[in-house]
Amino acid sequence: MTVPDRVFASNDRFSVRAASSQLPAAPARGVAVLACMDARIDVLRVLGLRAGDAHVVRNAGGRASDDAIRSLILSSLLFQTREFVVMHHTRCGMQTSGEKLHLRLRTAYPDTVGDEIDFLPFADLDQSVRDDVRRIERSSYIDADSLVTGCVYDVDSGRLRQVSG
Amino acid sequence: MTVPDRVFASNDRFSVRAASSQLPAAPARGVAVLACMDARIDVLRVLGLRAGDAHVVRNAGGRASDDAIRSLILSSLLFQTREFVVMHHTRCGMQTSGEKLHLRLRTAYPDTVGDEIDFLPFADLDQSVRDDVRRIERSSYIDADSLVTGCVYDVDSGRLRQVSG
Repeated sequence: MTVPDRVFASNDRFSVRAASSQLPAAPARGVAVLACMDARIDVLRVLGLRAGDAHVVRNAGGRASDDAIRSLILSSLLFQTREFVVMHHTRCGMQTSGEKLHLRLRTAYPDTVGDEIDFLPFADLDQSVRDDVRRIERSSYIDADSLVTGCVYDVDSGRLRQVSG
Repeated sequence: MTVPDRVFASNDRFSVRAASSQLPAAPARGVAVLACMDARIDVLRVLGLRAGDAHVVRNAGGRASDDAIRSLILSSLLFQTREFVVMHHTRCGMQTSGEKLHLRLRTAYPDTVGDEIDFLPFADLDQSVRDDVRRIERSSYIDADSLVTGCVYDVDSGRLRQVSG
């Protein structure tokens, strides 16, 4: 049974419960979270949030990439989000170097170049959070009175540690 | 109490439970999901997955942007992910036009231009899923034998409908 097969079977059961709880599109807590795609992180549970509470943007590293900024601008523009939380985490695969990642890519795909991809790795975990908080704060299309908080999630203890904001 | 204050207080309680369940970094189901940031969607619950099962990439629309592709390549390269699920949804704020979004941006920020941002809206929901499935399949750094499934989540009924794959 492939993952999609299992997923559709599981959703048949989920939809019976979900149908009774229609939520509005606007995040009830007025917050958007930017977090890593890491499998260990159930973002809503970690942050004590429920479906309906927050926009959740995720990518490798939880980086404030141009595309993440696009999403946060839309959250702010269409749904008046004024609070943002950047959450990176311990033992992240992105805490490495671009050189190492490009070497792995060239090893896996010897006939390709791949140097055009910036994987957005980082050397220092706390600094990466501060950098991404600053990128969001400096966007021309995020209101200056927005609150941007940065934190690190410890995947071993389950604890959040505030880094910035 | 700001959202961050509430989040940290809530995490204090969460971390006591989480500390006992250390998960490996590799997704247990070998799958990565690309979904919209929409507040109504609890991706893991909708798909019948648990923390540890899947990488979860999210942005406005669940689009296969360059940054989403970056994340999926890293999922594949570092964790051997070979199954991918693209999930868009009904009543998505991105089912609109770039003109309408740029008009809202210029109204909110009259002193700016903003035309440099491609918001990645779409006109047709099913077609947007098919387009994004194809973008992932065509990436030079996603293995050709990968399984990419596209689906639409109905935010009212809670049901998934397979569109592609």
